Amino acid sequence: MKALVTGCAGFIGSNLMDRLLKNGHEVVGVDNLSTGYEEFLEKANNKKKFKFYNLDILNKRHILNSLMENIDTVFHLAANADVRDGWKHPHKDLLYNTIGTGIVLASARQSKTVKRFVFSSTGSVYGEADIIPTPETYAPIQTSLYGASKLSAEGFIQAYCEESGMKGYIFRFVSILGQRYSHGHVIDFYRNLLKDPTRLVVQGDGTQRKSYLHVNDCITGILLTLKKGNGKEKVNIYNLGTNETCTVNDSIGWITKNLDISPEVVYTGGKRGWIGDNPHIHLDCTKMNKLGWKPKYTIEEGILSTLKYLQENEWILKE
Amino acid sequence: MKALVTGCAGFIGSNLMDRLLKNGHEVVGVDNLSTGYEEFLEKANNKKKFKFYNLDILNKRHILNSLMENIDTVFHLAANADVRDGWKHPHKDLLYNTIGTGIVLASARQSKTVKRFVFSSTGSVYGEADIIPTPETYAPIQTSLYGASKLSAEGFIQAYCEESGMKGYIFRFVSILGQRYSHGHVIDFYRNLLKDPTRLVVQGDGTQRKSYLHVNDCITGILLTLKKGNGKEKVNIYNLGTNETCTVNDSIGWITKNLDISPEVVYTGGKRGWIGDNPHIHLDCTKMNKLGWKPKYTIEEGILSTLKYLQENEWILKE
Repeated sequence: MKALVTGCAGFIGSNLMDRLLKNGHEVVGVDNLSTGYEEFLEKANNKKKFKFYNLDILNKRHILNSLMENIDTVFHLAANADVRDGWKHPHKDLLYNTIGTGIVLASARQSKTVKRFVFSSTGSVYGEADIIPTPETYAPIQTSLYGASKLSAEGFIQAYCEESGMKGYIFRFVSILGQRYSHGHVIDFYRNLLKDPTRLVVQGDGTQRKSYLHVNDCITGILLTLKKGNGKEKVNIYNLGTNETCTVNDSIGWITKNLDISPEVVYTGGKRGWIGDNPHIHLDCTKMNKLGWKPKYTIEEGILSTLKYLQENEWILKE
Repeated sequence: MKALVTGCAGFIGSNLMDRLLKNGHEVVGVDNLSTGYEEFLEKANNKKKFKFYNLDILNKRHILNSLMENIDTVFHLAANADVRDGWKHPHKDLLYNTIGTGIVLASARQSKTVKRFVFSSTGSVYGEADIIPTPETYAPIQTSLYGASKLSAEGFIQAYCEESGMKGYIFRFVSILGQRYSHGHVIDFYRNLLKDPTRLVVQGDGTQRKSYLHVNDCITGILLTLKKGNGKEKVNIYNLGTNETCTVNDSIGWITKNLDISPEVVYTGGKRGWIGDNPHIHLDCTKMNKLGWKPKYTIEEGILSTLKYLQENEWILKE
């Protein structure tokens, strides 16, 4: 495989890239280092089959086009991943996620060599689904700009695959955990507990029920699908999560027990942590499971391994 | 109602605007006249309660913002409506339909007065559905840039409605016919038959089965929904079509019989007229029908009234 990975210095992108390189593939990595970290490229930088380009996909399309030369598989992971703060900047998700994907698609299309377009979508596209666990065939109503921007990107990928002969692989992730995790509730809680181990403020009422997957399981799932799932369909959509869920309170319990502290937990209240927060995420992953994939990490193991990573890499806590 | 209508000089927009004015409402009309016609504004221009602004929604957002003042209902119809030629300019649908809607949404949101956001979506969002007639709850796969761009716009509308308190009304139209029709197979066929009444070239094999609705029925449906359907839902999605379908060949038969000609019909072949063409469109309109709405025009009546309009307004045939 000759792969181009956008967002290669991000949490999931860098883990994916390292796995691809480990498996002997050639990787062109693209990132504008806006939310990615150069530190995440260190392992890859030692590999001969890796080339990195500090590039914003929204600009310099001619460079992106030239990088697509002889690429057969695009992993498009570059995104604004900040679902919670969407309303602080209402055009950001549209710009980075929808328009960004449109630009990468057009670039892949002009290459004539790209056969597979792999996309990191999100379970957030289901909004507050009334079918739980939610299958891929659920027709969703968006509740966040992030979900809307990712579903939009999915639609454009589908249209491009109809026309160009590329095959689309769309993965709707639950929250991903593990090494290089740099965004989400575990880092927020840990950061705040370092500042004040006696008190933890939690968005919502703590009963939000969510699902989490370890990044190693996530990447194994993606690569297995490319191997086994590359059938007749122009577009392949897979929920990528686990049949397990936990509440925010469960997570707090595991984290504080591990840290051996007993903070007072203060809830901001309400069913939702923020506007567009889905108080109950549980994806039906039967389709992935049928390919022979199952996560190795439980949610508790995922959360605790993430905590361990953060403890060993406190530089990432810097805001 | 104090309404702002984008795309007010277009086919559906101008018909909607005339109806609103006839019903005594105040209307601010916006159009950049790129595919709209000043001729379509003539009736409205005589009304005191109408103000027109020649404005591109993609530019001059501060003007759009000022026009939103005291508006309670936005009818967002401005769009690139050219589903067939999407691949001639791959970013056009994304730009005019998705980004355009994002801009109008942000403008409506900042107004604080807009309570209803009405959107002209399309049955094209269903792609090649495997459930026919297709209900609103079908989870679609996009086959055209046009469909992708409209579904994207729907998603952003939903997210804005979640946050802002606006109610969203999304109508997924079949092909619309009637006075001021300026785009589609009836005008193509009539234009070509005027040039050569002995021969008609048809995209595809003529068996494509489609559904058509008269613009008068379409507008009655929209306004009835605003009256009757403005319930508890933040987002209201309605298929707006008819339970009737016809083939391209049926339409050719009606048109040529009416024109009293018998051209040789030449098919370019294939099930689809173009990439992304859906060879079988039939929307399940039960949800609309339950509001007490039913179309008055049959498809044949719609096509023949459109033909009559074109005959009486040959200026619109100019390419």
